[in-house]
Amino acid sequence: MTQSDQNRQFRLAQRPEGLPKKTDWEFVTEDIPQPGSDEILVGIEYISLDPAMRGWMNAGRSYIKPVEIGEVMRAGTAGTVLASNHPDFAEGDKVSGNFGVQTHAVVAGKDARKVDTGIAELPAYLGVLGMPGMTAYFGLLDVGGVNDGDTVVVSAASGAVGALVGQIAKLKGCHVVGIAGGAEKCAYVTDELGFDAAIDYKNESVYKGMKRHCPKGIDVFFDNVGGEILDSALANLAFKGRVVICGAISQYNATDGIYAPKNYMSLLVNRARMEGFVVFDYAKRYGEGAQAMAGWLSEGKIKHREDIVEGFETFPDTLLKLFEGSNFGKLVLKV
Amino acid sequence: MTQSDQNRQFRLAQRPEGLPKKTDWEFVTEDIPQPGSDEILVGIEYISLDPAMRGWMNAGRSYIKPVEIGEVMRAGTAGTVLASNHPDFAEGDKVSGNFGVQTHAVVAGKDARKVDTGIAELPAYLGVLGMPGMTAYFGLLDVGGVNDGDTVVVSAASGAVGALVGQIAKLKGCHVVGIAGGAEKCAYVTDELGFDAAIDYKNESVYKGMKRHCPKGIDVFFDNVGGEILDSALANLAFKGRVVICGAISQYNATDGIYAPKNYMSLLVNRARMEGFVVFDYAKRYGEGAQAMAGWLSEGKIKHREDIVEGFETFPDTLLKLFEGSNFGKLVLKV
Repeated sequence: MTQSDQNRQFRLAQRPEGLPKKTDWEFVTEDIPQPGSDEILVGIEYISLDPAMRGWMNAGRSYIKPVEIGEVMRAGTAGTVLASNHPDFAEGDKVSGNFGVQTHAVVAGKDARKVDTGIAELPAYLGVLGMPGMTAYFGLLDVGGVNDGDTVVVSAASGAVGALVGQIAKLKGCHVVGIAGGAEKCAYVTDELGFDAAIDYKNESVYKGMKRHCPKGIDVFFDNVGGEILDSALANLAFKGRVVICGAISQYNATDGIYAPKNYMSLLVNRARMEGFVVFDYAKRYGEGAQAMAGWLSEGKIKHREDIVEGFETFPDTLLKLFEGSNFGKLVLKV
Repeated sequence: MTQSDQNRQFRLAQRPEGLPKKTDWEFVTEDIPQPGSDEILVGIEYISLDPAMRGWMNAGRSYIKPVEIGEVMRAGTAGTVLASNHPDFAEGDKVSGNFGVQTHAVVAGKDARKVDTGIAELPAYLGVLGMPGMTAYFGLLDVGGVNDGDTVVVSAASGAVGALVGQIAKLKGCHVVGIAGGAEKCAYVTDELGFDAAIDYKNESVYKGMKRHCPKGIDVFFDNVGGEILDSALANLAFKGRVVICGAISQYNATDGIYAPKNYMSLLVNRARMEGFVVFDYAKRYGEGAQAMAGWLSEGKIKHREDIVEGFETFPDTLLKLFEGSNFGKLVLKV
């Protein structure tokens, strides 16, 4: 029996303090399970690595229940149906779903979504046509409520969500500024994605950059990072500005308290609001979001980029790229 | 010529660091000015002392321009028309307006508002029927968007705004919890004002008190104080909770950085929002607010309490009562 006859998994071994270490994971092999009634067996080909995974590893109440110790790590995935006992799926169908950090999964048919690789390659269903796409779409349009002519600033602008937020904002007639780390990512954001400006947080003052590129203040700040960058955005808000809290990757591994936004009283001065959201709440409207994103994609109006790392066993190390900021585009693990 | 033949004023002498000191004020006497065309001379009888005054003393951009060095301190006031060159006002009329910390003021008729002392005594027009009343009304109903059955928590609950917020919330069918300092204020809030519970921040854990009195979480937190109390409220928010930022009196005199809300990511976990507002933005709707407040007042559904300190010259010391929390009810200086 070769390794590929087995299901390989990463399970949560213990709750990390700070950055997840290798010892926080347990690598497990087991026999490939067989689908029961109304179930399918999926051969997982791509695993989505997302900042939110860090939060799922913590104990305690959050917007979703934590991954338990000993449980297969939760993850968005895409792959091929290897066997089906469900009438809607046939062997060979391409599917996506939250099947976890493993090579094979048996899931209920209702928990899998068939995808059309004629529209985009499989990994795109973990990015532009998956959760990051829905997050950008509903976060910017519904929570942020952007209007034509607004100044929109997005952090982690070359990342899976940020790159889409900025491009959608451009399509909606906004002045768009991205914040990214390093000259290469900043050039990508302006030259490839068409943002109006980029601020390199590793090499310049974000506060001053915002002042320069947003002379009328920030109408919508879409935040993926938290920390000092959020604080700078609060200090640069426009009248009636909106801060959309999507994530806070700079703080997820903090062990000595998080960086709290000192400038929150700017919300009063500017009659502004700061609002958090979770994409899962929009599940009933995914159809609308997916249709819009697929439309823009097929018209060539939205670009996307995946950073695909090969090798299932590299999972513990590859995940860390997110927190180092060393991924460039949507980070995907290829099994 | 006696002192009362002169206009006495407190002008801003320098910008305070921390708590305003006596040397931050200049006491000035000058001849009583005479009204020009369309102007009136007001003999000021009551001066409103409000937490917001501390912010107006700072330099720099805020929601309203700062008081300049050498300028009469801005304040809400109420008094009697002593002379009128404006067709809408006659000698003896009772009026209110932002006439400053002085005993006499010449103002344009359009900047004065005639008040009816048949509905309430003059000081009430600086409280329940004045800016604090409008602040409570629009902040709770418009920004907070309370619904029947909501759990509403308000800080500085025995203060000018907080006492009204809680009573309006009760009238709207909410479960209401107030935060106040000391047993006497807490008893006032529950026994006199009819709140469902009070938390004594000086003698118990606010976080635990919220947990106990808000088992379903906080739907609306109306914040007047900021600091740790805000942070505790964030940690206790309900799904889709709203944090209304009205003020942050605990932080106005901070000289070594403000206490920033560490728990802001609770906004994401709970899909909640935090929003600031400034009552002046509701100027066009004051009629609606004033009518509602006067109606409740005349029906005996709203109680109010003024803490009236006599003696114009006590202004610098009396103002500090706000920051010590030693006032009990709406703080008013009687000239």
